[in-house]
Amino acid sequence: MGFGYWGPNLVRNFTTCPETRIVAVVDPDPKRRAAVIVQYPWVVTHAELASVLADPDVDAVVIATPVFLHFPQAKAALLAGKHVLVEKPLCPSVAECEELAALAEQQQRVLMVDHTFVYTGAVRKIRSLIAEGALGRVLYFDSVRINLGLFQPDYNVIWDLAPHDASILDFVLGGARPEWVTALGVSHYGRHESLAYVTIGFGDGLIAHLHVNWVAPVKTRRIIIAGTSRMLVYDDTSPIEPVKLYESSVDVATMDRESAYALNVQYRTGDVLAPKLDGREALSQVAVTFAGACLRGEASPSDAAAAIRVVRVLEAAQRSLTQDGARVRP
Amino acid sequence: MGFGYWGPNLVRNFTTCPETRIVAVVDPDPKRRAAVIVQYPWVVTHAELASVLADPDVDAVVIATPVFLHFPQAKAALLAGKHVLVEKPLCPSVAECEELAALAEQQQRVLMVDHTFVYTGAVRKIRSLIAEGALGRVLYFDSVRINLGLFQPDYNVIWDLAPHDASILDFVLGGARPEWVTALGVSHYGRHESLAYVTIGFGDGLIAHLHVNWVAPVKTRRIIIAGTSRMLVYDDTSPIEPVKLYESSVDVATMDRESAYALNVQYRTGDVLAPKLDGREALSQVAVTFAGACLRGEASPSDAAAAIRVVRVLEAAQRSLTQDGARVRP
Amino acid sequence: MGFGYWGPNLVRNFTTCPETRIVAVVDPDPKRRAAVIVQYPWVVTHAELASVLADPDVDAVVIATPVFLHFPQAKAALLAGKHVLVEKPLCPSVAECEELAALAEQQQRVLMVDHTFVYTGAVRKIRSLIAEGALGRVLYFDSVRINLGLFQPDYNVIWDLAPHDASILDFVLGGARPEWVTALGVSHYGRHESLAYVTIGFGDGLIAHLHVNWVAPVKTRRIIIAGTSRMLVYDDTSPIEPVKLYESSVDVATMDRESAYALNVQYRTGDVLAPKLDGREALSQVAVTFAGACLRGEASPSDAAAAIRVVRVLEAAQRSLTQDGARVRP
Amino acid sequence: MGFGYWGPNLVRNFTTCPETRIVAVVDPDPKRRAAVIVQYPWVVTHAELASVLADPDVDAVVIATPVFLHFPQAKAALLAGKHVLVEKPLCPSVAECEELAALAEQQQRVLMVDHTFVYTGAVRKIRSLIAEGALGRVLYFDSVRINLGLFQPDYNVIWDLAPHDASILDFVLGGARPEWVTALGVSHYGRHESLAYVTIGFGDGLIAHLHVNWVAPVKTRRIIIAGTSRMLVYDDTSPIEPVKLYESSVDVATMDRESAYALNVQYRTGDVLAPKLDGREALSQVAVTFAGACLRGEASPSDAAAAIRVVRVLEAAQRSLTQDGARVRP
Repeated sequence: MGFGYWGPNLVRNFTTCPETRIVAVVDPDPKRRAAVIVQYPWVVTHAELASVLADPDVDAVVIATPVFLHFPQAKAALLAGKHVLVEKPLCPSVAECEELAALAEQQQRVLMVDHTFVYTGAVRKIRSLIAEGALGRVLYFDSVRINLGLFQPDYNVIWDLAPHDASILDFVLGGARPEWVTALGVSHYGRHESLAYVTIGFGDGLIAHLHVNWVAPVKTRRIIIAGTSRMLVYDDTSPIEPVKLYESSVDVATMDRESAYALNVQYRTGDVLAPKLDGREALSQVAVTFAGACLRGEASPSDAAAAIRVVRVLEAAQRSLTQDGARVRP
Repeated sequence: MGFGYWGPNLVRNFTTCPETRIVAVVDPDPKRRAAVIVQYPWVVTHAELASVLADPDVDAVVIATPVFLHFPQAKAALLAGKHVLVEKPLCPSVAECEELAALAEQQQRVLMVDHTFVYTGAVRKIRSLIAEGALGRVLYFDSVRINLGLFQPDYNVIWDLAPHDASILDFVLGGARPEWVTALGVSHYGRHESLAYVTIGFGDGLIAHLHVNWVAPVKTRRIIIAGTSRMLVYDDTSPIEPVKLYESSVDVATMDRESAYALNVQYRTGDVLAPKLDGREALSQVAVTFAGACLRGEASPSDAAAAIRVVRVLEAAQRSLTQDGARVRP
Repeated sequence: MGFGYWGPNLVRNFTTCPETRIVAVVDPDPKRRAAVIVQYPWVVTHAELASVLADPDVDAVVIATPVFLHFPQAKAALLAGKHVLVEKPLCPSVAECEELAALAEQQQRVLMVDHTFVYTGAVRKIRSLIAEGALGRVLYFDSVRINLGLFQPDYNVIWDLAPHDASILDFVLGGARPEWVTALGVSHYGRHESLAYVTIGFGDGLIAHLHVNWVAPVKTRRIIIAGTSRMLVYDDTSPIEPVKLYESSVDVATMDRESAYALNVQYRTGDVLAPKLDGREALSQVAVTFAGACLRGEASPSDAAAAIRVVRVLEAAQRSLTQDGARVRP
Repeated sequence: MGFGYWGPNLVRNFTTCPETRIVAVVDPDPKRRAAVIVQYPWVVTHAELASVLADPDVDAVVIATPVFLHFPQAKAALLAGKHVLVEKPLCPSVAECEELAALAEQQQRVLMVDHTFVYTGAVRKIRSLIAEGALGRVLYFDSVRINLGLFQPDYNVIWDLAPHDASILDFVLGGARPEWVTALGVSHYGRHESLAYVTIGFGDGLIAHLHVNWVAPVKTRRIIIAGTSRMLVYDDTSPIEPVKLYESSVDVATMDRESAYALNVQYRTGDVLAPKLDGREALSQVAVTFAGACLRGEASPSDAAAAIRVVRVLEAAQRSLTQDGARVRP
């Protein structure tokens, strides 16, 4: 459902996925339907979602439409007994996400969201490094995701870009629950914020900070995660060596010795390692995972629960935005 | 006064400045005094500031000591009729800054602060680009100043690193007055914050955001300033081409046409220019400017008024920090 | 003709070119022919070139096969009255190139070679900068084109990678004729050189030097062109700002004053400019240019004469390789 | 002896070396002698070398003068019974080097050359990586050392910059003997070559290639060393992580399977490691090593034998230059 910006990538990846087959593509725009036929002549096209929901040959629906359409379309698909994969963010509110999740549960159908980044080799490597304790206790997560970019007409930069960071954060921290969220933003053009800073507080002093921005001269996608033992930098714009693990840390033992005068804290620096990463296209793994979930009930790192956790953060950020950056409990 | 980390740089630059002469160096530490003698055998050393304040051959005093000593030492020097240059930040409170400024006024002596960065070729170039309208209206100022760095025992990372950004911001915006400040920070080790995010709001939607951090694996010092006509990036860690001016902007005209579906905002990208910069050491220009102020009453971009404006921001950030990031009027 | 590594790119670009239409694709491999049908169901496929040569609906043939097949296939196509576009290098010898060129002339058909790089925005910009005198007199051309790359079974790294550099060099210098060529190479694996250094001498002291290499840990594609007035660097691996123009030069006037002791030659450094480049895919411009040549006899920057000039350099380099790097007249 | 460009660095490092003491500095230029006195008031200065050679308190002489003075000055110093450290290159000919080496042997005095780079943490790490087999068999050494740089009045760019590469090459390969050398160069300004390419052939297919250049817009100092097991890149302009070790190699086993069509050679890529390096200033280690050689006869990696091996390569390159790049036996 939807053959605009992202839809063609989904069709391409589900076409090459061995366990899935594209039966039909739905888009209200006749030009886009014609484009489907040129590239995939064996595929049926429809103008309306209802046509495929009525088709018993269709087991699952993939929704890549504007965010405000996700809820009604996913709901209709689940009610029609289809498995559903939805583009990020799942819905514009937690309430809608939860309603869909309950419906999927009740219908015994899969509800999954396309948090593409958690399927990249880089993010999976980061998760396993943190899980195995390579970083020690995580101190902070700092992300900069800026570009001279696509302005979205129906939502602000937080709903456009922060789902990436919020889903990466949720994934690498193993679903840790935030205690508060604050957000500050500016609307440079039009009514939606084109730049925002979101801060997310966890227990134990851990904070995450996101800078999302549509009005920046250089594309930057850099996440720093520092721990008590090691630190890492994930630069998604670097085609080679996007993840670097630094053998650097602050030596706590010396922190007590505070004299009246400037003190050089002992810090340790060492080798830097750029681990080799799984280079497969992330979206192909989304397709494989969705197929496994539908066919064999396999677990997915971007299931309905993950989608809810991510939207909970976005919703809290949105509320903070309208309260001049006050702390909001997600 | 003070021959610790920064003092030697000051002595070196005032030695080579044609209009100044180092008469004496004061430091309570005998090892440091011995180090002075080895390098500058013709210089007299003292253990106490009082000794030079009593010396009629001394016209001016340069203070490079821990921040909490700035106020008493600068006050004593002004009362003794000396011109005074103080390391940044001038004092830990606006009240002390204002008292010193009033005293300097009354004593008809120069009070200047060492905002080193505003004397760099890069920052002076940025100021003139903004002043001549090359960027159009400034939309935001985003700074990242992070490192695996020197922990300071007597203050947090905001008082250590943010004076650089606050003084650059004040200088390039021509002293524009902020309306509010917020700050969030974390103390990873010891009692002082080692990471903080400071946001500064001006009128007309302009905001500045500073990320200062002592616990980062890679040294980053990058400032982005976006305007309605052009954008620039100042990367102080880049030995060549630290300032880049991008012929990039968002085309406002198209912003109204909001359809129900994703809209590609028209944005303009063009040439990128790395202007040639004055490569002289910034501190040498501090010395020259201080000499000109003392000898001929010449204006300085880091006079007492600038120092007060900068400390006003830092003090507001500190207050916000203790109020969980609430907006504080500076 | 040929749907292996490069063929699919050609088909895609000729499909979107408004003046051309893909009628048939030829490949001896049935799997590849099946792949054509999947993507372009309206296209006819053949196992043998003869089938399309006999088809009066076919006006032109594009050949993307191993180098040793270029000559017989292009010859057959020209004899059948078709226009011909051939992958680089045109043929493995100047004699074959010249025979094809003469045949094309006689048949009044277009013979063009796919020197893709001369159709990039970057290389066209460089050519116009040199043509308008922005660099002054060109002093040297230094290219590094290395990678951990595709080993070719039927020729060495010079025939694989140096056609790019030789065609760029020929294009930006406006077809200047080299006086000599030398080449040194090493065969690390198998019988063909996997690393080579080629030097090309022109009159007036101008030399070009190419480092081509299949056994390098980092992909590098950097060309430096220095002139008496300015210098430029073309880094093809840089997604943004691949061409940088440096306001740097050596000041000749001071070169005479040679004292007995080390002399600091006066050199001038200034702004660095990254001009905005035409971002269209180069291969789409190859298609457009070939169409214009076939339909309206328009000139092409990679015509038969250019192809001969490039192969002349490659052939000379090959001869030098077998003579331990002796200078060879191309 | 000599307080021009490099002399002050030598004085500074020998001052801080615990086993050495600067007694006197010699320079014919009175301004430079005055500069010595300002910085090191306890040091005696002389206009002529003879003055210190006659001084029995002087044990060793460090010579940092133009190359053509190295031989007479070092000879005089050895004859006076002094140990001698000479700037690179030791002498402009192998014959002179050998005469000095024989004289040092006869006088039982140390003769050492300042091959600074072999004392850096980076080059020492590279040597040990190669020695312990981390790279497997070394396939090639490719160096680019270019800049918009100091033109030297009394020799060409090979004698100025290639001593660095030749000494690094000699050191990391453990003194392996080259079989042939070729060189091509161009004199853009004045009579000496300002750009040159030097190729050095060893047995077993190993070659080294040096690009040295005074007329380049960007400073580059990059050495690639590829082996059968791993490859490394040493980028001396990178302040952080100058050495990177790539887990990349070509898989020999698959090289035999050459089909008629393009074959994807199997190559292996893996982690990239930037090892932590000894960050001490190289010149301080030169001082320490020279002191150890003089006082206790300790071995040095830049002894007279190493100096001769390096000059042998430079001399061969110079001869090749005058023979249009013919292979010369060093």
